[in-house]
Amino acid sequence: MIVQKKTFRIPEFKLQSGSVLRDVAIGYETFGQLNADGTNAILICHFFSGTSHCAGRYRESDPEPGYWDAIIGPGKAIDTNKFFVISSDVLSNVNARVATVVSTGPSSINPQTGRVYGSSFPIVTITDFVDAQKKLVDSLGVTRLHAVCGPSMGALQTFEWTARYPEFFDRAMPVIGPGLSAEPYLISQLQQWCQPILDDPDFQNGDYYGTGREPLRGLAQAFKLITFTALHQNWANRLFGRRLAHDGDPLQKLNARFAIDKHLDEAGALRAQTCDANAVLRIARANQLFSIEDRKDRIRARFLMIPSATDLLMTPQMSARGATELRRLGRQVDVFTIEGDGGHLDGLNLIGQASEAIRAFISS
Amino acid sequence: MIVQKKTFRIPEFKLQSGSVLRDVAIGYETFGQLNADGTNAILICHFFSGTSHCAGRYRESDPEPGYWDAIIGPGKAIDTNKFFVISSDVLSNVNARVATVVSTGPSSINPQTGRVYGSSFPIVTITDFVDAQKKLVDSLGVTRLHAVCGPSMGALQTFEWTARYPEFFDRAMPVIGPGLSAEPYLISQLQQWCQPILDDPDFQNGDYYGTGREPLRGLAQAFKLITFTALHQNWANRLFGRRLAHDGDPLQKLNARFAIDKHLDEAGALRAQTCDANAVLRIARANQLFSIEDRKDRIRARFLMIPSATDLLMTPQMSARGATELRRLGRQVDVFTIEGDGGHLDGLNLIGQASEAIRAFISS
Repeated sequence: MIVQKKTFRIPEFKLQSGSVLRDVAIGYETFGQLNADGTNAILICHFFSGTSHCAGRYRESDPEPGYWDAIIGPGKAIDTNKFFVISSDVLSNVNARVATVVSTGPSSINPQTGRVYGSSFPIVTITDFVDAQKKLVDSLGVTRLHAVCGPSMGALQTFEWTARYPEFFDRAMPVIGPGLSAEPYLISQLQQWCQPILDDPDFQNGDYYGTGREPLRGLAQAFKLITFTALHQNWANRLFGRRLAHDGDPLQKLNARFAIDKHLDEAGALRAQTCDANAVLRIARANQLFSIEDRKDRIRARFLMIPSATDLLMTPQMSARGATELRRLGRQVDVFTIEGDGGHLDGLNLIGQASEAIRAFISS
Repeated sequence: MIVQKKTFRIPEFKLQSGSVLRDVAIGYETFGQLNADGTNAILICHFFSGTSHCAGRYRESDPEPGYWDAIIGPGKAIDTNKFFVISSDVLSNVNARVATVVSTGPSSINPQTGRVYGSSFPIVTITDFVDAQKKLVDSLGVTRLHAVCGPSMGALQTFEWTARYPEFFDRAMPVIGPGLSAEPYLISQLQQWCQPILDDPDFQNGDYYGTGREPLRGLAQAFKLITFTALHQNWANRLFGRRLAHDGDPLQKLNARFAIDKHLDEAGALRAQTCDANAVLRIARANQLFSIEDRKDRIRARFLMIPSATDLLMTPQMSARGATELRRLGRQVDVFTIEGDGGHLDGLNLIGQASEAIRAFISS
């Protein structure tokens, strides 16, 4: 399945903060065909460090398909022979240096000044992401969504959709999500991810573009923390045990590492090459600000919630608190739990486990 | 119960790394009286950021007693009317700027050079801590310990005692401990605590003493991470919810905080005032290096293991893996689980829950 990245433009976009962005670009991709009355579309919302690339390949030679390729495609649980699948990048997408990521963010040129936004880029929210998606699906001729789905921050967007546009769709599938708000422990976790960026002297209060210095060390450390938090003890035991990194004896050298740390250091450094620090800070804040607690009475959707049993970040307990609250409000909530040792990331890597549950939910 | 801090000196102490420290000071305190044949002593080993001060007060006016005062004292589970309780600071104790902490560490003067150790202070291990304790209890006239106990890093020392001096005692009580080694996820967690120190420009590779610059910002951030990891989502929900810190609107200002983060920032900054960054790095490494897997056949002790149900750091699952392994080796293992919402810290704050189990174990 070959897919093409496209760009949707919004001339003027008012954010939840009150700020107004002009000439906003939103990157998106679609799979399958919209039906005549515009009612067979399924929206996929991406996770913290993800993009619109939820399935397929841009080129035959791409080594990996999109993150949920196991469930999106012809004949798959989200069947692109029947459904028109839409996925877009959020504003301030963290992968700002990836060629296919064109969405407006802190490293974009502000058309009102002709200069890069940098520290002047406003705070954006899950509500803003969802409002941009609504404009996109409207522009494509969608009259009503068949379902909204997404993992992690995609689950936050899914919840936000249920409160913000309750009449526009019936089926909500939050995967590895929290409950109806970001709980305080999660809020603090997100702040810890940001801290190495804020503490990096090269961050320069966010105005590092064009200075020849970028907070790559802080950004790498942030992604090390993100990766670590998204995994689980059992994964670490299985893959690493107490093996050393072979860069010295940790009994003799303070900077000699264990194998797990070398792996996480390298994973963080790799992500830092293609991501933008200012964007990470804004995406973290968007997650922290997420709450539909005060609007939960508006929700009309039916839910399929898919937690991961070993998730340490958006834990099955958080998800269960959300399910309890939704049932109390009279909503129908089915739950399918992914079983693995990969923590939060199992919501991406093992989503295929939920194929039949998803197929049944989508067609119900 | 008023207690006095005393100092034990070791003229020459060979470490596991091969390094030799001279004129080593070990701070300690004792409660109760040693019996005539020297067999009623119980050793208490302290946690990562703790000291020998496990019970009582140094002065009547002290606002708080030692950390396990709920179970150590006259008539308590560890009854100082019957037992002689000994507790000592580990080498490189992190609380280097607390007046009662005299143990040799990186901020001590190296008697061989007349200058502060700084970066030249060697890596120390749980084995070293236990060897120093053995010398201390020998010096006090203890012929055989009645029990060895301790929370968190104190549990690591307790396990190490069972493998290193198996004939010297029968009862081991590791509280909120891991299994028989530091698992890789824990190893990486410990490294993350260290990272803000290593990344602080004021760290100066560990030779910051007397330069007028100390890595206090990195140290505060390290203690923020430590405190966060030692707690639990339920604790955060109960105490903070999504309240703001009242230092600005997080929808408008990137540096505006939620209440939980302000609390953790302040907790971290407070600890940074009395702790030493080099010492934190060495204590973290000592935890990372902990393993008795290759010596587990030597173990003879009976165990009372006390995990905390909500512990996210040294999880009940890690503790259970240790219990399974010990039973497989033919050891008797009783388990008492502390129930609370305070995570790892419940092993300190709610230890009173285990009073009767401890009393029965100690007298059995």
